[in-house]
Amino acid sequence: MADTLILHEDPRSGNCYKIRLTAALLGLPLATRGYDIMKGETRTPEFLAGVNANGRIPVLQIGDGDGARFLPESNAACWYLAHGTALVPEDRFAQADMLRWMFFEQYNHEPNIATLRFWLAFVGEAKLSAEQRAQMMPKRMAGCAALRLMDGHLAANAFFCGDAATLADIALFAYTHVAEEGGFALSDYPHIRSWIGRMQALPGFVPMQ
Amino acid sequence: MADTLILHEDPRSGNCYKIRLTAALLGLPLATRGYDIMKGETRTPEFLAGVNANGRIPVLQIGDGDGARFLPESNAACWYLAHGTALVPEDRFAQADMLRWMFFEQYNHEPNIATLRFWLAFVGEAKLSAEQRAQMMPKRMAGCAALRLMDGHLAANAFFCGDAATLADIALFAYTHVAEEGGFALSDYPHIRSWIGRMQALPGFVPMQ
Repeated sequence: MADTLILHEDPRSGNCYKIRLTAALLGLPLATRGYDIMKGETRTPEFLAGVNANGRIPVLQIGDGDGARFLPESNAACWYLAHGTALVPEDRFAQADMLRWMFFEQYNHEPNIATLRFWLAFVGEAKLSAEQRAQMMPKRMAGCAALRLMDGHLAANAFFCGDAATLADIALFAYTHVAEEGGFALSDYPHIRSWIGRMQALPGFVPMQ
Repeated sequence: MADTLILHEDPRSGNCYKIRLTAALLGLPLATRGYDIMKGETRTPEFLAGVNANGRIPVLQIGDGDGARFLPESNAACWYLAHGTALVPEDRFAQADMLRWMFFEQYNHEPNIATLRFWLAFVGEAKLSAEQRAQMMPKRMAGCAALRLMDGHLAANAFFCGDAATLADIALFAYTHVAEEGGFALSDYPHIRSWIGRMQALPGFVPMQ
């Protein structure tokens, strides 16, 4: 019998959505437990001791009871779910190239595009600290640079690693398709817009909540 | 015949060192081409068109001439080199858990610990912009949190994923063992210090230049 899969998540988080989308595309049943990060629910002593010492979601729980194992980091959780499926290429270079886009997502994309979305759409501009305000312009520029790089790649490629969707596409789709909530104009990136349409047409696709 | 491997690097970069260390531990020959990031040598039109449109090093080049392929992102390059070796666990959960620490490294560790090292040891505190100065304290706190999390994990584990070194250890070793150049006191983290000793004792280990 397959292990129970439980996603510890905040449904508004794109990082959590990556895991739900991966499970949906693979037809895997996934239970969820919700936390409100705005209320500090992932910083409680119970969460830190039992789910993730890093105080963050998402965390993928594999199995239940005493034998449960916990996997933080959205892209690592997607890797676990998609292991041995068509969402992870088998070829040595293609596999590394897929991971290249997933590391790019965590380093160049998420800290800029997801953070501006969180600040503008959830915290609210009026409530930002002076330090956060000072970071808005550099994050805007770095986010636009990430989108330009993606748009250039998608001008010549249907998906990030060749002709079919992989985890690289899922990782980058999560915060890209809602980038306008962070003040990024997707109309500037026509190849990204076409790719968003291809992602939404994948069999089993589920929208972000 | 195996493909020629060429590392496009700045020897002072810990991200480049990860790839050199992986190749050394695996006994793989690796040629290098040097760039000075302080002089903008990775932002030239030739570099952007021929090596990496993201204007960053390291990039692992696989093969030479017309068939050359280029792999940006340090952790993806390490994955390519270590594919099918003991540095990557075969077990599904262990493999995902190794990637979990590698994504943690790029998201929680490198942007804080490597950036403060770069600012303090290479740029120089007197030359930092007001914006960079405002980021020093949050980066200091986030870097210490990353080191505390690592120290807690290493209190109960010889390496990040069990009893033997994997790519997770290589990725985290690169900037951790020189964290004092960024003003972090490793004496506060005794389990990290012991692990650094275990890493330096690995057969084939090479130091950072």
